[in-house]
Amino acid sequence: MKNFADRLTERIKVLSNPTVLGLDPAAEYVPDEMLLYYGKQVEDKSMATSMAIFEFNRMLIDATCDIIPAVKPQFAYYEMYGVHGMEALRRTISYAKEKGMLVIADAKRNDIGSTAAAYANAIIGETAMWDQTVSSMYDADAVTLNAYLGIDGIQPFIDVAKTKGKGMYILVRTSNPSAGDFQDLRMEDGETLYEKVARKVAKWGEDLVGECGYSSVGAVIGATWPEQAAALRQIMPKSLILVPGYGAQGGSADAAAVNFDASGNGAIVNASRSLMCAYKKRDDLKPMDFQAAAYDEAVRMRDDLLSAIARKVK
Amino acid sequence: MKNFADRLTERIKVLSNPTVLGLDPAAEYVPDEMLLYYGKQVEDKSMATSMAIFEFNRMLIDATCDIIPAVKPQFAYYEMYGVHGMEALRRTISYAKEKGMLVIADAKRNDIGSTAAAYANAIIGETAMWDQTVSSMYDADAVTLNAYLGIDGIQPFIDVAKTKGKGMYILVRTSNPSAGDFQDLRMEDGETLYEKVARKVAKWGEDLVGECGYSSVGAVIGATWPEQAAALRQIMPKSLILVPGYGAQGGSADAAAVNFDASGNGAIVNASRSLMCAYKKRDDLKPMDFQAAAYDEAVRMRDDLLSAIARKVK
Repeated sequence: MKNFADRLTERIKVLSNPTVLGLDPAAEYVPDEMLLYYGKQVEDKSMATSMAIFEFNRMLIDATCDIIPAVKPQFAYYEMYGVHGMEALRRTISYAKEKGMLVIADAKRNDIGSTAAAYANAIIGETAMWDQTVSSMYDADAVTLNAYLGIDGIQPFIDVAKTKGKGMYILVRTSNPSAGDFQDLRMEDGETLYEKVARKVAKWGEDLVGECGYSSVGAVIGATWPEQAAALRQIMPKSLILVPGYGAQGGSADAAAVNFDASGNGAIVNASRSLMCAYKKRDDLKPMDFQAAAYDEAVRMRDDLLSAIARKVK
Repeated sequence: MKNFADRLTERIKVLSNPTVLGLDPAAEYVPDEMLLYYGKQVEDKSMATSMAIFEFNRMLIDATCDIIPAVKPQFAYYEMYGVHGMEALRRTISYAKEKGMLVIADAKRNDIGSTAAAYANAIIGETAMWDQTVSSMYDADAVTLNAYLGIDGIQPFIDVAKTKGKGMYILVRTSNPSAGDFQDLRMEDGETLYEKVARKVAKWGEDLVGECGYSSVGAVIGATWPEQAAALRQIMPKSLILVPGYGAQGGSADAAAVNFDASGNGAIVNASRSLMCAYKKRDDLKPMDFQAAAYDEAVRMRDDLLSAIARKVK
């Protein structure tokens, strides 16, 4: 199976767009008409909400799959609706792949050996069933991970990534205000914790470097921290970067562009609310025109990022 | 709603047993007869496996609910079986509570503000449905968390814990061999990362101290690190400790006992495989006698822990 970094880099090139569509479908993002439609048909409320969410996702994927290379469903927003929410997640991942999009499962998993292996099997690998046959469950292309437990919690994902052409993004510098509570702590040798994590990410990814020059063991660096991002790029020259925090969280295109190389490769920038809820800012459109609104915003975001990357390279 | 720390401490006292039954039901733990029974009845393999797992859990709960105060289902082992696995998890949590056991959801969640709130709602709180009514999804009593993102990722859980009498255990010192990769890093002031995390855990828990003297904001400290545990107890005198790593992972009762106070309160020790798979070590029992084997092992473990705590206090 082809290396994840190569698959993603190629798809970004084909579409000339380093954007990932975050699918974090809180019920309040979904147009009322859609919630009401399923709410009236289906008695179980978590099932009705989950069906509306899947339909919303499906239409967003239809609207953007020719312009955006990947989606990033955030597991929390599905888990919140219980078992039916997880079914909406499974169907969303499956539909996005059908439409040619890569899927980054934003699950931030972390656990020890055999448990980490169970998560790796669940999200990017295959699970052994009662009769020892194996099946894929969520079957995403990549997954976000938290490295607090050290290599024990990462190795099982690397093992699956090698055999199945999958990838991972390890939290290095998160986009939130309190990221520094621990990540900024300075060590006795002068380096910060997030720099220490970055060094391990670079090392752990050495065996998964693809033809594109990047590794399928990537890193998460928030667009809200451009100075740190520039330093981290030096520590992790071959890591694919996943950049959250653009748009709603306050990160600019120029801040996100710090993560890209001179050819405009090596990173992908996430937007969730600004794409999903673009319709809420359009007085000229009805809520059910959310597809057109998401498409227009995807074009604007792409051009915003490409301009910033061009400025940076120049 | 009564404080989680008080509810757990009271139940431990009533049963004189600071043990938590880890429910990490890999298919290979389940007796073949049970897998075969559901496998023959149900065509969908992940559903058949999940049904066997729930039934195995149900019988383990029946066998131990009069002697063990709490269960700790590990989310990975249910997520591994997809949507049907999550239904087995939901039913396991519900059944354990029905039988009077407290439930610690071992999910190690970590995310930023609104996403952390979604997880808190999913696992210990309530979710707003399409029509704004609210329902509980997994409704566990407590959840394990990872603090790499700082207070942003913890506060939403504290908020739910306050209003609903729930709790959390934050990873401080994990039981696995590579725990030290980052947790042992030494800061410029001489403290290690796990000590820094412990200080925050103590501070974050100040508002949730119950009548028992302990806070519902607890910490995870592996039984494999007794020296660190002793130092950490000083930093977090009021934190409930969840102690994994006893038994199969090599931690002894004496090592676990370091986490308890002079009255034998303040901690709970997890065992998963050694209880679930006790039947595999019993030549005198058939696999379907796993209830008796789990009960006998629960008695042995309780007495082992109580003796170690008594030795420590003396």
